[in-house]
Amino acid sequence: MIVDTDQARPARQSGTIRPVTHEDVPALKTVIDANGLFPSDMLDDMLAGYFSGDASDDFWLTSDDGGPVAVAYYAPERMTQGTWNLLLIAVDPDRQGQGRGSALLCHVEQALAARGERVLLVETSGLPSFARTRAFYQKCGYEEEARIREYYQAGEDKVVFRKLLTVSISENY
Amino acid sequence: MIVDTDQARPARQSGTIRPVTHEDVPALKTVIDANGLFPSDMLDDMLAGYFSGDASDDFWLTSDDGGPVAVAYYAPERMTQGTWNLLLIAVDPDRQGQGRGSALLCHVEQALAARGERVLLVETSGLPSFARTRAFYQKCGYEEEARIREYYQAGEDKVVFRKLLTVSISENY
Repeated sequence: MIVDTDQARPARQSGTIRPVTHEDVPALKTVIDANGLFPSDMLDDMLAGYFSGDASDDFWLTSDDGGPVAVAYYAPERMTQGTWNLLLIAVDPDRQGQGRGSALLCHVEQALAARGERVLLVETSGLPSFARTRAFYQKCGYEEEARIREYYQAGEDKVVFRKLLTVSISENY
Repeated sequence: MIVDTDQARPARQSGTIRPVTHEDVPALKTVIDANGLFPSDMLDDMLAGYFSGDASDDFWLTSDDGGPVAVAYYAPERMTQGTWNLLLIAVDPDRQGQGRGSALLCHVEQALAARGERVLLVETSGLPSFARTRAFYQKCGYEEEARIREYYQAGEDKVVFRKLLTVSISENY
């Protein structure tokens, strides 16, 4: 999933990270639209399995600071033991530069590590316009692991970032 | 998907390549079991969307020679324009070495190219025990495009093979 994220060094930011609820959906659509990621009405289908419990290994988290201001969605890779994929992470543009993206990503990593998962992958575009996104993942300790040429469309590669998960002492975000 | 395939140079082999039907399922389970790929009762779930029409972009083909003796399953990669993934290809061990795997794979490539698709990916294990499978894809013109370390489990990489699709003159298999 192609995403945009905040780039600044983590500053002290308030709010809590918690699972997404039905009530969050309109605000999360606004976050999706503001980032221009994909048509936000796709969110209903993407969340359907999570809300129904049919996709019980789909995890959706939000950063709530007077309302949902960021979203992360991650799920296991099929046919693997302990490998996960961060399918979406996005922060409200008005709340970027406050470390919310980094905090949300660290939260995901620690939640996965705590349950014994091994690897988190993130996939994004190789286009120049996604340089900030790729820099964000690198800043968060992700290595460029692979590149599939011409993946998304002619001329647009997919870049796969990867991080080995380890349990660390909880940080104060 | 991890697969096993025949390795011999394509020999003249009889039979037809056609879409999978409900009646093929027991024979295809036998092919899956004989190759030790995954529990063959998973096939029912894998085929459910294809048979119901809900997954109308899932394609399942069999090589029929007095009954189904091989199977191929391919589907589009989400969020791409023209990139597909060969999720399964397997040949009855008693019918391997007759060029059936190569013929089935060529058929898939030509069917995709004919509808204007661009890229076919195949993913398999990096373990030494899958050397024959990787050699099969290389023989069929696939390049090793990427490797995700420790993907399937600790110590087992995923290798991604890739081929750019082009329409070619039909061959007699």
